[in-house]
Amino acid sequence: MRTDIPLSCPVPLRHTTVQLAHGGGGRLMRQLIEEVFLEPLPSPALAERHDSAVVPLGAERLALTTDSYVVTPRFFPGGDIGRLAVYGTVNDLAMSGAHPLYLSAGFILEEGLAMEELRRVVASMREAARECGVRLITGDTKVVDRGKADGLFINTTGAGRVPEERSVHPRRVRPGDVVLVSGDVGRHGIAVLSVREGIAFETPVQSDCAPLAPLVAALFEAAVDVHCLRDATRGGLASALNEIALDGGVSLAVDESAVPVDEAVAGACELLGLDPLYVACEGRMVAFVPAPQADAALEAMRRHPLGAGAARIGRVTEGPAGKVSLRTRLGGQRLLDLLSGEQLPRIC
Amino acid sequence: MRTDIPLSCPVPLRHTTVQLAHGGGGRLMRQLIEEVFLEPLPSPALAERHDSAVVPLGAERLALTTDSYVVTPRFFPGGDIGRLAVYGTVNDLAMSGAHPLYLSAGFILEEGLAMEELRRVVASMREAARECGVRLITGDTKVVDRGKADGLFINTTGAGRVPEERSVHPRRVRPGDVVLVSGDVGRHGIAVLSVREGIAFETPVQSDCAPLAPLVAALFEAAVDVHCLRDATRGGLASALNEIALDGGVSLAVDESAVPVDEAVAGACELLGLDPLYVACEGRMVAFVPAPQADAALEAMRRHPLGAGAARIGRVTEGPAGKVSLRTRLGGQRLLDLLSGEQLPRIC
Repeated sequence: MRTDIPLSCPVPLRHTTVQLAHGGGGRLMRQLIEEVFLEPLPSPALAERHDSAVVPLGAERLALTTDSYVVTPRFFPGGDIGRLAVYGTVNDLAMSGAHPLYLSAGFILEEGLAMEELRRVVASMREAARECGVRLITGDTKVVDRGKADGLFINTTGAGRVPEERSVHPRRVRPGDVVLVSGDVGRHGIAVLSVREGIAFETPVQSDCAPLAPLVAALFEAAVDVHCLRDATRGGLASALNEIALDGGVSLAVDESAVPVDEAVAGACELLGLDPLYVACEGRMVAFVPAPQADAALEAMRRHPLGAGAARIGRVTEGPAGKVSLRTRLGGQRLLDLLSGEQLPRIC
Repeated sequence: MRTDIPLSCPVPLRHTTVQLAHGGGGRLMRQLIEEVFLEPLPSPALAERHDSAVVPLGAERLALTTDSYVVTPRFFPGGDIGRLAVYGTVNDLAMSGAHPLYLSAGFILEEGLAMEELRRVVASMREAARECGVRLITGDTKVVDRGKADGLFINTTGAGRVPEERSVHPRRVRPGDVVLVSGDVGRHGIAVLSVREGIAFETPVQSDCAPLAPLVAALFEAAVDVHCLRDATRGGLASALNEIALDGGVSLAVDESAVPVDEAVAGACELLGLDPLYVACEGRMVAFVPAPQADAALEAMRRHPLGAGAARIGRVTEGPAGKVSLRTRLGGQRLLDLLSGEQLPRIC
């Protein structure tokens, strides 16, 4: 027996081909981004890995963010790919403190897609854009041959304006900051999964997909010095917390029993062996705020319908960058780690 | 025999499903955009159908444009999908008179794509971005299951700043304006086709893909009052001319023998039954300039390596909107129409 080969493998294996898990919001995606995109494309804005890049445009500050949407099925309880493509990108702008203003839309269509379905998706985007107060100003359509795509993929890129004085960023997070979540988590993932897998729950679960900009505005109107915001999408709340802890260079202490989870979602997760903290949301965010302003921030969020279920779930602590400790419901402690792979592919 | 059914069909048939031709840059694509996107999404910027939307961002003018790239094969003589994804979008910014500044990149990867190929594409994007002087500032990666995409699709969205005084737009085109083209046309389409169909030409044809911003800058530096610019991509030179004639509400008179076509491209087109005027370029533009400045504009373009083959090919005339007349090589006249369908799918 050779003893120079370690029996455990703490370093993730290098993959020679792209895996589904590379799109999952976990450790493999982080690794892909670091090795394939960040190293060859050195860019300060890219390296910040915030939800939007904030860069100068003449005398103004432009926020820019992009997302492609490949969710399957395209229609699910509480939303559809079109609605998601607007909310998701507008939310990423809001998470950088920007006023969302404009959207571009790039469609990749598979030959044979029903025109009626495309119309429904576009109608849905129009509604969502109106709701968010953003304007769709430019677009592109490509068609690929049958079998070379899956019906319809949408890319939306959002542009917004960041007021001069605002700085919302992982590096502003400080030990002592309080962590808030804007509502119950995991509904989007379970809603999509229920249709995809044909699972009928006693109480149908609706996606939480919703625009977050009004909630962010409410925080600023309440004069809260918001340190950082992040919407919990792929990889759920746990991944959002891990990212901020890593990029902000801090540790977090989170109380599991304080995290709101809808009863039907909790039941579905138990049935399916999923942890709701890792299940995607599309209308939930975490906010990092100074402790003295935590109550005011919570109140401001709760006054808004989209933040009615907001809760204080933890705090920022001294400690190694990226460590997220969870006090479990049973009173124990465990690490809330980045998932290495992918719980639910094609959720957005 | 029923006589109430017309034997010819001048009005395009309504399609109930998406056809390859809906992505072809011709009449069907225009119809799709009008009926499915523009009517349900009323937006002044969208309705302008310029290469980029130009909108206010505080006190500045932001140009925003988006394109998805689905070219097959991904590597071809003279370029690859990564290079195309940078040049194509940066060129669209330049066509609106903007200084190209920033790019976002959204990747849709098919499970199983070789990581090495992804790295090559990213390296190519880095090179192209450096060449264009733009910064890639934000990105997104989605992975779809095997068989649900075709290796790799890239969306790039470009943001630029338009100087206060500039207005480059189809509505500025006037009867009397001179039409210039920046070089020989059709090389990109033939280069892609040669690899895709495994056709070996005596002289290998290299794609013309190239950044156009320096050429646009040269025109402005020469103090030319550029009325309109358009890069000839899907649907080739003929489609670019048709679009401007339609959107600018003018007629055009073009001289076929004045349009530069490389000998190998002309030969390949003859062999394949293609009209080079409809074959895609990725580094050629048409410029509409006032007649008194046409010589200065041509000289400015020719002084630049990317415009060395520039030529004066026609002029804007009074007449119905969208009419493009071609004086053929043999001295006849014919209409240069929008293609109804698609000559070459997945060319960009």
